[in-house]
Amino acid sequence: MTGQLDDRALDTAEITRQEALYAPLARSVRQLIDAAIRTQVDEATIAEATVALEQIAGRLSARQIEASYGVQTAITGVQRGWASPVTGVRNPIAPPIDLRHLADCEVAADFEVGAAYEGPPGLVHGGVSALILDHVLGEAVHAAGHWGMTGTLTLRYRRPTPLGRLHTAARIDRAEGRKVFAQGHIADDGGVTVEASGIFILPASSVEGL
Amino acid sequence: MTGQLDDRALDTAEITRQEALYAPLARSVRQLIDAAIRTQVDEATIAEATVALEQIAGRLSARQIEASYGVQTAITGVQRGWASPVTGVRNPIAPPIDLRHLADCEVAADFEVGAAYEGPPGLVHGGVSALILDHVLGEAVHAAGHWGMTGTLTLRYRRPTPLGRLHTAARIDRAEGRKVFAQGHIADDGGVTVEASGIFILPASSVEGL
Repeated sequence: MTGQLDDRALDTAEITRQEALYAPLARSVRQLIDAAIRTQVDEATIAEATVALEQIAGRLSARQIEASYGVQTAITGVQRGWASPVTGVRNPIAPPIDLRHLADCEVAADFEVGAAYEGPPGLVHGGVSALILDHVLGEAVHAAGHWGMTGTLTLRYRRPTPLGRLHTAARIDRAEGRKVFAQGHIADDGGVTVEASGIFILPASSVEGL
Repeated sequence: MTGQLDDRALDTAEITRQEALYAPLARSVRQLIDAAIRTQVDEATIAEATVALEQIAGRLSARQIEASYGVQTAITGVQRGWASPVTGVRNPIAPPIDLRHLADCEVAADFEVGAAYEGPPGLVHGGVSALILDHVLGEAVHAAGHWGMTGTLTLRYRRPTPLGRLHTAARIDRAEGRKVFAQGHIADDGGVTVEASGIFILPASSVEGL
């Protein structure tokens, strides 16, 4: 990937130090996301909090990465993952999901989603399941030694997915030329709730379009 | 919907007052989401901000809605939309997208997504496009007088979607029994980047599974 440094360019201690700095910041913003949706404190406290949060955002933004995170040239592979809206420890939008790489190139994770990811009352928003599954299937493609962008993604919602503790897993089926076929699911304690299948396109053709 | 109050139960002035209170709070948290990903200020400032944000989250959480937002019984239809992860003015995860209802039951919006929604460098995460399109298609189903949960959703990624200013639109094709067929897209200045088609299932069958 253009401009991507080898992870060895930053020693492990330095990467650990940076994660120990940025991950708690993102965690505190995740608490605020939940609080913004669920708070029932009095009007004065909310107004006061809003002003304080704007001031802190201003201080944090005083010096920042130009444009988006991923376009930086001096960034390692490990750091690149920190900004993902699904798995990124530095992105407060991400639950974040901590994917494990299993045998046979399968990836899997247990995770938890709360109020910020709600669609129908008490249930995960269907689009949130789609967001997660696109990422998890892409990670399975990566685990199998490929790197591709999503070409087609199909989601089948078998039954409602409740908010709370969930499981996800994905693996690739096969590769044909520049196409890699992957499938995965989200499950609760009662079994699969959403299934996904996707075709991922390796870089050269993804740039040219399908 | 169970427990949903008629919007007339809260007068318009009261709904406007609540939105004027909660929307700025969510906006300030959106600034913090972006700042958490992009900040390059010194370590001491980040550590201090983290502690301050945790304290504010604690104050806001001192009194809050039990579990998730949507399971409240005393909530109007207008308020229910406030917590959506796509369109909700009270949900900091949402850009938020402000959908307009056009003629012929089409829904559409211009919107902007930044660093928090990035997948490949400078591009919208494919799963974020899926999240948005699931919601926009569902809203088209709603605009046509139905209410359904996603049964199947298929996304075709025509070319990469750049971060920045984008457009989305959706409409329903037809209804057959309990199934409503919808389609939509996301576009940049150069035209369509992602297409979606979905089958939405009306409530009775969605509860029983497909």
